[in-house]
Amino acid sequence: MLKRHFAPGASPATLVPHTEGEGAVKPRIHLLEYDANSFAEHEVTESADLLALIDAGKITWINIDGLGDIDALELLARKYGLHPLALEDVLNTGQRPKVEEFQDHLFIVAQMVYQDATECICGEQVSIFLGKNYVITVQEEPEYDVFNPVRERLRAGRGSIRKSKADYLAYALLDSIIDHYFPVLDELGRSIEDLEDQLLENPERSMVLKLHEHRRSLTQLRRYVWPLRDLVNGLLHDNSGQIKAPTKVFLRDCYDHTVQLMDFVESYKEITTGLMELYHSSVGLRTNEVMRVLTVITSIFIPLTFIVGVYGMNFSQEPPDNKTMPLNMPELYSPHGYIVVMGVMLVIAVAQLVFFRRKGWL
Amino acid sequence: MLKRHFAPGASPATLVPHTEGEGAVKPRIHLLEYDANSFAEHEVTESADLLALIDAGKITWINIDGLGDIDALELLARKYGLHPLALEDVLNTGQRPKVEEFQDHLFIVAQMVYQDATECICGEQVSIFLGKNYVITVQEEPEYDVFNPVRERLRAGRGSIRKSKADYLAYALLDSIIDHYFPVLDELGRSIEDLEDQLLENPERSMVLKLHEHRRSLTQLRRYVWPLRDLVNGLLHDNSGQIKAPTKVFLRDCYDHTVQLMDFVESYKEITTGLMELYHSSVGLRTNEVMRVLTVITSIFIPLTFIVGVYGMNFSQEPPDNKTMPLNMPELYSPHGYIVVMGVMLVIAVAQLVFFRRKGWL
Amino acid sequence: MLKRHFAPGASPATLVPHTEGEGAVKPRIHLLEYDANSFAEHEVTESADLLALIDAGKITWINIDGLGDIDALELLARKYGLHPLALEDVLNTGQRPKVEEFQDHLFIVAQMVYQDATECICGEQVSIFLGKNYVITVQEEPEYDVFNPVRERLRAGRGSIRKSKADYLAYALLDSIIDHYFPVLDELGRSIEDLEDQLLENPERSMVLKLHEHRRSLTQLRRYVWPLRDLVNGLLHDNSGQIKAPTKVFLRDCYDHTVQLMDFVESYKEITTGLMELYHSSVGLRTNEVMRVLTVITSIFIPLTFIVGVYGMNFSQEPPDNKTMPLNMPELYSPHGYIVVMGVMLVIAVAQLVFFRRKGWL
Amino acid sequence: MLKRHFAPGASPATLVPHTEGEGAVKPRIHLLEYDANSFAEHEVTESADLLALIDAGKITWINIDGLGDIDALELLARKYGLHPLALEDVLNTGQRPKVEEFQDHLFIVAQMVYQDATECICGEQVSIFLGKNYVITVQEEPEYDVFNPVRERLRAGRGSIRKSKADYLAYALLDSIIDHYFPVLDELGRSIEDLEDQLLENPERSMVLKLHEHRRSLTQLRRYVWPLRDLVNGLLHDNSGQIKAPTKVFLRDCYDHTVQLMDFVESYKEITTGLMELYHSSVGLRTNEVMRVLTVITSIFIPLTFIVGVYGMNFSQEPPDNKTMPLNMPELYSPHGYIVVMGVMLVIAVAQLVFFRRKGWL
Amino acid sequence: MLKRHFAPGASPATLVPHTEGEGAVKPRIHLLEYDANSFAEHEVTESADLLALIDAGKITWINIDGLGDIDALELLARKYGLHPLALEDVLNTGQRPKVEEFQDHLFIVAQMVYQDATECICGEQVSIFLGKNYVITVQEEPEYDVFNPVRERLRAGRGSIRKSKADYLAYALLDSIIDHYFPVLDELGRSIEDLEDQLLENPERSMVLKLHEHRRSLTQLRRYVWPLRDLVNGLLHDNSGQIKAPTKVFLRDCYDHTVQLMDFVESYKEITTGLMELYHSSVGLRTNEVMRVLTVITSIFIPLTFIVGVYGMNFSQEPPDNKTMPLNMPELYSPHGYIVVMGVMLVIAVAQLVFFRRKGWL
Repeated sequence: MLKRHFAPGASPATLVPHTEGEGAVKPRIHLLEYDANSFAEHEVTESADLLALIDAGKITWINIDGLGDIDALELLARKYGLHPLALEDVLNTGQRPKVEEFQDHLFIVAQMVYQDATECICGEQVSIFLGKNYVITVQEEPEYDVFNPVRERLRAGRGSIRKSKADYLAYALLDSIIDHYFPVLDELGRSIEDLEDQLLENPERSMVLKLHEHRRSLTQLRRYVWPLRDLVNGLLHDNSGQIKAPTKVFLRDCYDHTVQLMDFVESYKEITTGLMELYHSSVGLRTNEVMRVLTVITSIFIPLTFIVGVYGMNFSQEPPDNKTMPLNMPELYSPHGYIVVMGVMLVIAVAQLVFFRRKGWL
Repeated sequence: MLKRHFAPGASPATLVPHTEGEGAVKPRIHLLEYDANSFAEHEVTESADLLALIDAGKITWINIDGLGDIDALELLARKYGLHPLALEDVLNTGQRPKVEEFQDHLFIVAQMVYQDATECICGEQVSIFLGKNYVITVQEEPEYDVFNPVRERLRAGRGSIRKSKADYLAYALLDSIIDHYFPVLDELGRSIEDLEDQLLENPERSMVLKLHEHRRSLTQLRRYVWPLRDLVNGLLHDNSGQIKAPTKVFLRDCYDHTVQLMDFVESYKEITTGLMELYHSSVGLRTNEVMRVLTVITSIFIPLTFIVGVYGMNFSQEPPDNKTMPLNMPELYSPHGYIVVMGVMLVIAVAQLVFFRRKGWL
Repeated sequence: MLKRHFAPGASPATLVPHTEGEGAVKPRIHLLEYDANSFAEHEVTESADLLALIDAGKITWINIDGLGDIDALELLARKYGLHPLALEDVLNTGQRPKVEEFQDHLFIVAQMVYQDATECICGEQVSIFLGKNYVITVQEEPEYDVFNPVRERLRAGRGSIRKSKADYLAYALLDSIIDHYFPVLDELGRSIEDLEDQLLENPERSMVLKLHEHRRSLTQLRRYVWPLRDLVNGLLHDNSGQIKAPTKVFLRDCYDHTVQLMDFVESYKEITTGLMELYHSSVGLRTNEVMRVLTVITSIFIPLTFIVGVYGMNFSQEPPDNKTMPLNMPELYSPHGYIVVMGVMLVIAVAQLVFFRRKGWL
Repeated sequence: MLKRHFAPGASPATLVPHTEGEGAVKPRIHLLEYDANSFAEHEVTESADLLALIDAGKITWINIDGLGDIDALELLARKYGLHPLALEDVLNTGQRPKVEEFQDHLFIVAQMVYQDATECICGEQVSIFLGKNYVITVQEEPEYDVFNPVRERLRAGRGSIRKSKADYLAYALLDSIIDHYFPVLDELGRSIEDLEDQLLENPERSMVLKLHEHRRSLTQLRRYVWPLRDLVNGLLHDNSGQIKAPTKVFLRDCYDHTVQLMDFVESYKEITTGLMELYHSSVGLRTNEVMRVLTVITSIFIPLTFIVGVYGMNFSQEPPDNKTMPLNMPELYSPHGYIVVMGVMLVIAVAQLVFFRRKGWL
Repeated sequence: MLKRHFAPGASPATLVPHTEGEGAVKPRIHLLEYDANSFAEHEVTESADLLALIDAGKITWINIDGLGDIDALELLARKYGLHPLALEDVLNTGQRPKVEEFQDHLFIVAQMVYQDATECICGEQVSIFLGKNYVITVQEEPEYDVFNPVRERLRAGRGSIRKSKADYLAYALLDSIIDHYFPVLDELGRSIEDLEDQLLENPERSMVLKLHEHRRSLTQLRRYVWPLRDLVNGLLHDNSGQIKAPTKVFLRDCYDHTVQLMDFVESYKEITTGLMELYHSSVGLRTNEVMRVLTVITSIFIPLTFIVGVYGMNFSQEPPDNKTMPLNMPELYSPHGYIVVMGVMLVIAVAQLVFFRRKGWL
């Protein structure tokens, strides 16, 4: 959960590429250039080629997928004057979502959320640099990304995106990140509701484990969503001039969505807490029920077993020397002894059943 | 619980009508026009006719019931310049209550609450556009609505409503929405108090389920009520000029009501939490009581059963070969053996009863 | 708990007298007029007479006890220009304590608290109108009232009350309301401490019910006390000119008292929560103790009962046909069989006792 | 816990001496006068003598110990113009710590804390009046006081205290009060840590009671400490001119100490909550352990007892009339019957032991 | 936990060296002087030599390790005009992290955190004085220190540290302190996750104890981390001129780290709370399971034991006097008696098994 790749106390703004595990995976670099009338798209394989491809007159979106190699990032940093502390945060993934203002660019960190094949909720850091006419996005891992709808809109030239400036593109990307929280939360909510139904019917241990897992997911999501609101709010009140007024109207919409996300996360937290309590009360009740069965059966049969034990005693045996002796257990020789004892036991059993029924234990 | 009808990452302000399930139900459109002296009412069946019916000199209230068809909404949007992001929020129901200021209109989203036939507490989104001399309300579902009292007041010309401007109408509608929370909360409170009485008498599992349900309702209501206060507060401090000073006096009253609602919701939450705890303690106590009965009966009869078992042993039998053997269990042949053993067992039983009574277990 | 007497959606400022139940009880109207030198007191039976009795040159305190009839209130509203929304709040009892500023009067709502004969903590709404030289107080029910000490001070002319203006009278009334919370809380605190002592000695179900009741009372008191502080604070920072500087020094004292009240309510809440937990732990411990007794007795006697059962088996019987057969249970015919078995059982029992004692279960 | 000595609704600023219980104990009055060069000390026995002893040119510290007699206080009030509402608060002990600004003096209320002989944590109200060149302190009870170190410093003329003004003396007294919280909290912390060690070893009921007591002490201390911070902060930002800049540097230090106190109180609260939970879990676990022993022993021996019971049945008896009858229980007459049955039972017992061991119950 | 070395009520700014326990250990003093071009390092053994070694033209970092001797500190205090209250705080370790502004220096207190050999999380107070061109750091104990990476950077002349002013050095030291929280939290997080895995598999008492320990560590860390944020924030908004703008950019990064630390601490707290609940539910469930085994076995065999007991009664014995008597227990003499009784018992056992299986207890 805690990811820090440099040694504590190291010089600030030290850049270390992610090469742990299976060796440095080369990041995929994707370049998109457009204005209202034109649109170009390049898959860049050599970092060195990158700068040559950039057309200063257009809006440029450079997306870097993966942190295994930092050559491209360093090239861009030199070209656009990206701040070293920002670059450090790009590489030290696991940052809190935040926005930072530098001299001629904004630096935005957000956590992208998606569900992978194993239904686990994954977070992935996305860093966004927004400058005068460029947007640079850096993603932690190359497999998955939430930006395809934005790419499609750019390709199709739909909506106002092609006619707008770089700040609108940054908004669109942020909006896409935020929008992708909804299906994840939706899925989580559905799973919680299923769990609720099952719990009300028949509580089982596996459900508590599931519930516990959901709570952890919610704790994680909360850590992503709360600062997201501050982030969007920061953009809304940005004075650096990077965000223009028309985009702010759209960011207000974005802000509403983050508040809604917080709302959902908090509601789900509350519901899972309620379910945990429900589970506890169910287990308590079941133990109570089990105890009642045990108590009723034991209370009825233990005294009866004692009585039949009494008449299994050997006091009435003839002594070996056949001396005359007064009869010790005359009941045994009474003609109706057996039937009377059986009757007495029946009465005791019935009396107890009545007593337990009155107590509401049956 | 989470309702979002467009794909994540889609272009903002995309309008998608609600046509899921049983096909597009045509929305009912109701038009009301009035000034201090005149009053007219139309049920509009064709969206196309709508614009023709509007009389610019009067105050116009257009109520659209249902989101299955968005033609009318688009017509109105064009006529009054409603903002696309607001329209998107109208269709994406499940919004948090809020107020948004646009250039020449205010956009208000609230959640209307009512109890349906199954006693379930339902929320339904109501969107209100307030312009210079019009109010447009859009409701999520056509079946139910809380605006009838306002319509009646308009028809009757009672109170000051006909003499006031559009902002007063918007206030009256909002007030009607807020007022309708009270009977719902009232019903909920009564149900919680019933539950309390039952729980104090005889706790049962069904009550926990009911309690859990109430808590979920309260969680839901809280999500509606808290932002409602901010909404009314926003209107009270509105600087756009849409809300005039005389209406603000009435909104202050509205504000008090939302605070009161929050108060009730929080109090009920606290009471249900207390009841849950009471239930837990009751179950614990009952288990304790069951255990005590089990322990007392078992503790008394188990030793006695052992004793009668002792005298059921066959040590005193004559060996098959009739050899002379010392008597092994002389008690069996004592003339008073039986009576003495019975007496000893009685003493043991009484001693235990005294012991348990002293412990307070009887 | 929720009291609203008009239909939701009704026109605001609709006045409905309280006539539910046993028919309209006529409110008692009491008029007090004074200045530094003179003092007059009238019991008014006919609302119509009221206005004639008012002497504009003096400070007038009109107290209306009961809401069954609103004639007097409407007369006064017309005379002093009381705002209709304020009148509505007077009649819709169950308001949160608050202060509202109107053009030439302040409107204060507070909850008076007292313990009735059944030791139940009752709240009763008191509405106070403070104008230039009048104070109008309206109480919910005529039986009980906390203003007698103020009346006495007015009659006696003690202290500075007769020499002061209407705002001081309003302060004195509010102070009397606040002061009367203390004995109620005092009583509650004493009851909680009694409960604590009992709980530490011998926890019983009745105590949880009592505890639950106290917690409900505290929830209710908190709903009264928290807004009370805001109310007094509102008066302290009043700019309408109704409250003069000399009275504000006294209101600061009042403010301290409300903070103290909040302090007490919160402390008591915390203590009751601690007691609930203590109770839970006590019940858990008792169950544990009961279980231990059960386990010790059962564990000792069940194996012994098994052993005596072994020697109660009939394997050593002569077959009916008297065939020679090897002896099946030779122990039975050993001369010391009985004494050895008894000894073995004693050893088992003692070993178990030692084991349980070591475990700390005895 | 709640101490109010006057009737609710009484005229404000009514002064009532504490004479409850054993009659009015005369307060001890101690007068200290000093400047940089001189120092004088008087024990005043007659209130009337007090004023004559005061030397206006020096800094005067009058300490009144006990509230049984208010003559001296009234004399001083007249001389220094102390506000009646402040005097009322002096007598109505149990006030929240606070600072109040009056025309030419500050009025400070704090709670002094110490542990008495019974290790109970006691609070005692100290009221401090700070004027131009005098400090008046009034304590609730005469037995104990935390000011001796300050007196010693004055007598010895150590540090800067003799060279400073009255505000420094007030600071020194307040600092002494605050400092004396530390040993009390220290003792409490040590006791909590002892409890923790014991609880981890062997949880017992007496520990919960102790824990409960500590939590109550912490609740009480919190009520004293939180407002203390506001008090010191109030002095730090005092604009009345009573507190001079050089003293404020020292008050900042004082402020740090109050924050540290709050920190400790909150940490201890959290730890006690954790311990309570630990205790609960321990009791739950012990019950579980007890149950396991019961279940294992019962589960092993109950079936065996059943089996030996089977062979104790009398089906094989010869009928009294010696009619020939088929053998009913042939096992009994099998030569190896006994040994086989014993073996079967052994197998059952061992199988169960293996089963329970696998379950981890042994 | 609470460390205060002077008597309550003592004169403020009294300095007492730490000589408790094993006698005064002499502190180690280490002096570092540098500018962009030069670098010198001295281990000072005699406090008296210290001042002579300081070169006013360079940036001086004096590190004092240990509080057993305060000579050096007093020398420095005189030379640089360090405030006595600050010195007092240096010696009274256990201070909350804070920053204080004095006339010509800033005084910073932070808590350094590390894990010692016993894996215990230790805190150690570090006091930092930052003046025009000097930094003085005082550590509580000489064994361990987190400043080595900074020393290495100074020695190597890497990064911008040698070219920067004293404020950058102070930042670097603070950053090193903050950075060292991460591995500690990392370790803690890993241990919590291990615990979670184990708890999900097989809950044991040792885990609760471990969990409890972790919670205490988190409580302690929270006490260090929360004020740390305020500290860094205080430096960020420092107006004294000690912190220059270029360093503030780096402090913003530091601030982010403290927020991240808080985030982790809070998340871990939440997770441990969830684990505690999980543990409780597991214990409850296990008790339930144990009860179910007990109940099933007892419920099946107790009635059967009763039945075999019935046929072990001696009612069918011939009376000693051989009088003719009706047969009392005819079943015993029925040719199929035994087999029928065994069959009946089998049916009862199977019926119960079916019943319990239906209940889900098997």
